[in-house]
Amino acid sequence: MSATGIEFSRKNMEISGNDFINNLHPENLRLFINQNPFCQSRDSSWSITNTCYRDYDLFTCFGGEACFYLNSREFILKSGMSLLVGPDIQVEARHRGCENFRATAQHFDLKIFGELDFFSLIEYRPLVKILPWDEICRSYREYTDLNEKQTGRLLQHARLWQILARFIEYAFISVKKNIENRYLFIMNILTEIDRHISDPEIDRKILSCSPYSADYTCGIFKKLVGMRPREYILKKRLDRAKEMLQRGFPVKEAAREAGFSDELYFSKVFKLHEKITPSEYKAGN
Amino acid sequence: MSATGIEFSRKNMEISGNDFINNLHPENLRLFINQNPFCQSRDSSWSITNTCYRDYDLFTCFGGEACFYLNSREFILKSGMSLLVGPDIQVEARHRGCENFRATAQHFDLKIFGELDFFSLIEYRPLVKILPWDEICRSYREYTDLNEKQTGRLLQHARLWQILARFIEYAFISVKKNIENRYLFIMNILTEIDRHISDPEIDRKILSCSPYSADYTCGIFKKLVGMRPREYILKKRLDRAKEMLQRGFPVKEAAREAGFSDELYFSKVFKLHEKITPSEYKAGN
Repeated sequence: MSATGIEFSRKNMEISGNDFINNLHPENLRLFINQNPFCQSRDSSWSITNTCYRDYDLFTCFGGEACFYLNSREFILKSGMSLLVGPDIQVEARHRGCENFRATAQHFDLKIFGELDFFSLIEYRPLVKILPWDEICRSYREYTDLNEKQTGRLLQHARLWQILARFIEYAFISVKKNIENRYLFIMNILTEIDRHISDPEIDRKILSCSPYSADYTCGIFKKLVGMRPREYILKKRLDRAKEMLQRGFPVKEAAREAGFSDELYFSKVFKLHEKITPSEYKAGN
Repeated sequence: MSATGIEFSRKNMEISGNDFINNLHPENLRLFINQNPFCQSRDSSWSITNTCYRDYDLFTCFGGEACFYLNSREFILKSGMSLLVGPDIQVEARHRGCENFRATAQHFDLKIFGELDFFSLIEYRPLVKILPWDEICRSYREYTDLNEKQTGRLLQHARLWQILARFIEYAFISVKKNIENRYLFIMNILTEIDRHISDPEIDRKILSCSPYSADYTCGIFKKLVGMRPREYILKKRLDRAKEMLQRGFPVKEAAREAGFSDELYFSKVFKLHEKITPSEYKAGN
């Protein structure tokens, strides 16, 4: 048991269910917009025959229907739904019903730490109904408008994030069981640090729970996150302490909440990094 | 003059005005949410005295007014406006008027290529009126709700992106004149590749326009972008070609538009990477 009463064990390092999505560190995800969004309105002559993409393609339907086969599995894409077609999947599709099939297709890649394909880590439903639909419609409208104006790449990116964040939330089923690699392990560590930042011994604990040696763990952490675990934890502790001080908590409580067991040491470290003392920071806010 | 009639010269490598914002490659920006968003409703007793942050803090006002001094320069923050306080800026603030000052404060960092502080590259207005305000309000409401539920980190990230993209759009004045470094240079190259992807000689041209040696240019490109310029250009050419084919253009035209001077060579490269021929891809879509 830690000083804060939170148990920390190798078991906690396992990723489960929604925790994975809720605890993702989005700053480690890179979203690549590979092509401009493509809006189509197709009649009954339309079909996709025996195609395979090299990246991800998110189809979102605004009217009509289409029948998709992904590796021969059937999906009916209707208005208000999104379908994700992953790379190396055999795609067939055809128009369905009487109305024109109106949809947007967006090619992208989503990589964790700029390297690992995000969707390869999880089991997900390819076809989901996305809510709130009116908001998604608005986003898409602005998204495709921006594209036509050929400006606002930053806004376009923000919009696609919004759509994808919703899609992932609805489509996520679980983390793949057979995935156990250093990327997931580091993601896990990041989540555990967030959860247990009040535990003064979190740095020692994550290293002792690691299946790898301390040196190797610190090495891959540094490579993927950009700083060593100790620096990262200190940064998170100071952020947490500042948040507490800003919200009006006493210095002692801010120190404890941020995982500093010694208030004097906390003040020293705080002053060193923030150039003012915790009390000054608190008074200043 | 290139084959496509677009002139490409060292002059083109200079970054100017809005081009910088419109041509940013958002996949190279990392947004770090350093603290949870902090909502405050303050009466006339409130003030910030002589404080300095180590990161960025975006204040957005929903009611009432406050008077801020950033390095002694006065800004009046009113409802519907956002104020960005950068690191190492001397901040003073106090309540103003009769109403409570209601605002959100969001600590974050925005880094290009995970290393370089984004706002240090540009001149910007710290105080802007953000439009459309009703949309921003909605985003903030959902943003802070998400925070209270302690879930949906991905959505929170998407929301903050949306707010920041708008802020940057309105606040941007120019790229700092005295900035000339390898980050900006690589950002510039990325923009030029995008603009001139139809030019079959773009790869040779960017290297010949570089103020650095070809080896050094390729080296920093690879370090920051993750692949060598030649690979990156090929990827962009194939994306462009696929987009053209998907939109129904003939193979010959897709090849030319994507900067392949030879249609046969295009088909060979396409087949090698996409596992199907351009005609099959076109027919399949």
